[in-house]
Amino acid sequence: MERVMNVTKELFVKLTQNSLKDDEKVLLEGWVRGNRDNGKIGFIEFNDGTTFKNIQLVYDHELLSKEIYDKCAHFKYAGAIKVEGKIKLTPENKQPFEVVVIDAEVLGDVDEDYPLQKKRHSFEFMRDIAYLRPRANTFNALFRVRNILAYAIHKFFQERGFMYVHTPLLTTNDAEGAGQTFKVCEDLKNPTEFFNANTSLTVSGQLHVEPFALTFRDTYTFGPTFRAEHSNTSRHASEFWMIEPEIAFADLEDDMNLMEDFLKYIMSYVLENCKEEMDFFNTMIEKGVLDKIQHVLNSPFKRMTYTEGIEILKEAVKNGEKFEYNHIEWGMDLQSEHERYLTEKVVKGPMFLIDYPKDIKSFYMKLNKDGKTVAACDLLVPGVGEICGGSQREDDYEKLKARMEKEGNDKTLDWYLNLRRYGGCIHSGFGLGFDRLLMYMTGLSNIRDVQPYPRTPGSIKY
Amino acid sequence: MERVMNVTKELFVKLTQNSLKDDEKVLLEGWVRGNRDNGKIGFIEFNDGTTFKNIQLVYDHELLSKEIYDKCAHFKYAGAIKVEGKIKLTPENKQPFEVVVIDAEVLGDVDEDYPLQKKRHSFEFMRDIAYLRPRANTFNALFRVRNILAYAIHKFFQERGFMYVHTPLLTTNDAEGAGQTFKVCEDLKNPTEFFNANTSLTVSGQLHVEPFALTFRDTYTFGPTFRAEHSNTSRHASEFWMIEPEIAFADLEDDMNLMEDFLKYIMSYVLENCKEEMDFFNTMIEKGVLDKIQHVLNSPFKRMTYTEGIEILKEAVKNGEKFEYNHIEWGMDLQSEHERYLTEKVVKGPMFLIDYPKDIKSFYMKLNKDGKTVAACDLLVPGVGEICGGSQREDDYEKLKARMEKEGNDKTLDWYLNLRRYGGCIHSGFGLGFDRLLMYMTGLSNIRDVQPYPRTPGSIKY
Repeated sequence: MERVMNVTKELFVKLTQNSLKDDEKVLLEGWVRGNRDNGKIGFIEFNDGTTFKNIQLVYDHELLSKEIYDKCAHFKYAGAIKVEGKIKLTPENKQPFEVVVIDAEVLGDVDEDYPLQKKRHSFEFMRDIAYLRPRANTFNALFRVRNILAYAIHKFFQERGFMYVHTPLLTTNDAEGAGQTFKVCEDLKNPTEFFNANTSLTVSGQLHVEPFALTFRDTYTFGPTFRAEHSNTSRHASEFWMIEPEIAFADLEDDMNLMEDFLKYIMSYVLENCKEEMDFFNTMIEKGVLDKIQHVLNSPFKRMTYTEGIEILKEAVKNGEKFEYNHIEWGMDLQSEHERYLTEKVVKGPMFLIDYPKDIKSFYMKLNKDGKTVAACDLLVPGVGEICGGSQREDDYEKLKARMEKEGNDKTLDWYLNLRRYGGCIHSGFGLGFDRLLMYMTGLSNIRDVQPYPRTPGSIKY
Repeated sequence: MERVMNVTKELFVKLTQNSLKDDEKVLLEGWVRGNRDNGKIGFIEFNDGTTFKNIQLVYDHELLSKEIYDKCAHFKYAGAIKVEGKIKLTPENKQPFEVVVIDAEVLGDVDEDYPLQKKRHSFEFMRDIAYLRPRANTFNALFRVRNILAYAIHKFFQERGFMYVHTPLLTTNDAEGAGQTFKVCEDLKNPTEFFNANTSLTVSGQLHVEPFALTFRDTYTFGPTFRAEHSNTSRHASEFWMIEPEIAFADLEDDMNLMEDFLKYIMSYVLENCKEEMDFFNTMIEKGVLDKIQHVLNSPFKRMTYTEGIEILKEAVKNGEKFEYNHIEWGMDLQSEHERYLTEKVVKGPMFLIDYPKDIKSFYMKLNKDGKTVAACDLLVPGVGEICGGSQREDDYEKLKARMEKEGNDKTLDWYLNLRRYGGCIHSGFGLGFDRLLMYMTGLSNIRDVQPYPRTPGSIKY
């Protein structure tokens, strides 16, 4: 077999270049997404995976032998077929062209128990057939956007000279004490044998990427991270992808500028390269999701200190605002409802909340001159609240050491501390959960619906 | 602080555009990679991480106050500094420009116990200071090439419309029975509790990407994989990155064409984008590595069947060739020495060895009409032997089922089998170990030296 087939993407490209001609011969392979006929003429919705949109194949009894017509009429939903046909331009129709069938054959048949029939299925049901759901419109669109978003991330960083670092997933430390880790071993009865150490799956690549930033200036990791939390919510997965840039000679302000540039770039890239998919989400999943993203793109990201934020929230409560957690005081961890109040009601747009109390943030964040707050920022956006967070890192050896000792970090992170004694400098970074960003951009409200094969407590089918 | 610094990469770009001017002011931040002076004039080798090459900073007692001169003279090796200076073009020298210091300050000092001094260290020693070794020339060059190679992979696939799929790392099956897997659990005493299943780290994303190929046609994964093998060799790591494309409506021939196009693209991309780094490897690590890669780029990849290969090897033994494993017979697994004989002595270039005996290959490979061999290929290259392998996948439900039952695969892969009943088609793919490719391209002979933080049996420092 020679792979000299046409693909539908190529036909759409030719169409936009005005080089797709009537009667042009095409040879297509792909899948049946719909098939109906009235004994005289029939229509196949056809998709070969290269475009989100289906194209229409027409089979006409006046142009075909009875044998070929009948073969077409019996093509099953979801079957793989091969079609020889010719282009018919239909500029007056919704579909700008169709393919008139000359010959066709089945490549892969479909058994009767095929679970993904042409009807509405619940997302819960779809999760149970994760290996087939990419064929359904919502998930087809989703995985296309997921691909483009992932590439946009690499493109942004590479065009700016950032170095991609494959930080390790197997570690002996839990990075930021950020929740439960999964243990890893070869032999469950002798778990430290293989590596001669307690080994777990990483919760963050940040600590491992810092040495690279202190060599190459601008760096990033983009890879899987893990949390063994028993949080069975719509926003928690046990395995998810994180983007973690780390930049040297850069303070919190530089970090926020990078976050803003980065988010705007990747969002624009998706809007430009996934028009049909994003229209689908805007119509079928979250009405207004396009406006929501456009609003972020068109807004400067404002800054507000945590302390200001607390004052505003206190004032709001005084004026009758009802939060579920209504007792606002300096030092508290903000709830999503508080974050959303600030970004939706006060700033009415994306905002950085900065300079958090040191006790509610990680040990590696730079202590501000006030001795009480750290140079950290959370980016809050309307509709969800916090979407990512970053900080300037503590570059003072003694301060970091004291903080680490207080938190009980053992000797395994001495190397991290030593970076401050060996040509250290001001540096900063942030972490962005890729899957949650995808939820935000598509309007899908469950993290299980934006991952190829989600892993959550009690659930690891496939 | 505003991040309006110059970076050396930008200066080199301006130089090639003839827009770098004498006396142009620059503000630089970076690290000292060498410093010597004679009391009247001094020279700093300076690197800010944006280029592999250092640039030279000159401090001259006639142009500086004694205080600034002395400060410069005391800059320590590996320290972080900030420098204000002006460009002096030196077209007659090896270095096309230098920076004459106007003012300078230390940003990050270096303690006396800094382990990476300016002298030759062994690679073994460097592994022990993995968090500092990116600053050493060999590793600096290596991680630059690693970054460019990773991006080239995404670029190749994205430009051709392939869909990137984040296949899961936590799995309940071991894909191809390809060696020992690491177990994963939250609680060592109750290892199945968290997911309600025996869970391990993936050895391959292939099985999980096939459903996507059967939806989107052209797909790939590129992510970490794991092997809990006690192989303490220079080519085995417990954690490494794999590239696994999977293409639908494509047979073994299409697969081999893709492998050839892919390898030639990414190799060319590295040669074009890492000139200085590759020159370094060619001079310092493997003399002739550039010729070796050029030879691959300029050769058509030949095809030879396994059966022909066995005949040739038998003939060679008859004619006096001495292999360590000298008993050649059909059905055997070839050793590296046999592969190298075929690619180096017989074909004298890259070659695909195809149609292997089914009993030495994986269950998912397409059985050929002879009933004895499978449509698999290994790509052999001079200098190393096998560098990657691929196959057409078995698309016949009954044949695959029989093969899986014979190998004792349990019900957990029923979904994989079902793909053959639900609109399946001819499809193929291959797997390429990213780290081993990097070894091949740089001449570094130990996998521990091409990974940021290598994990091997007994070794998980950092």
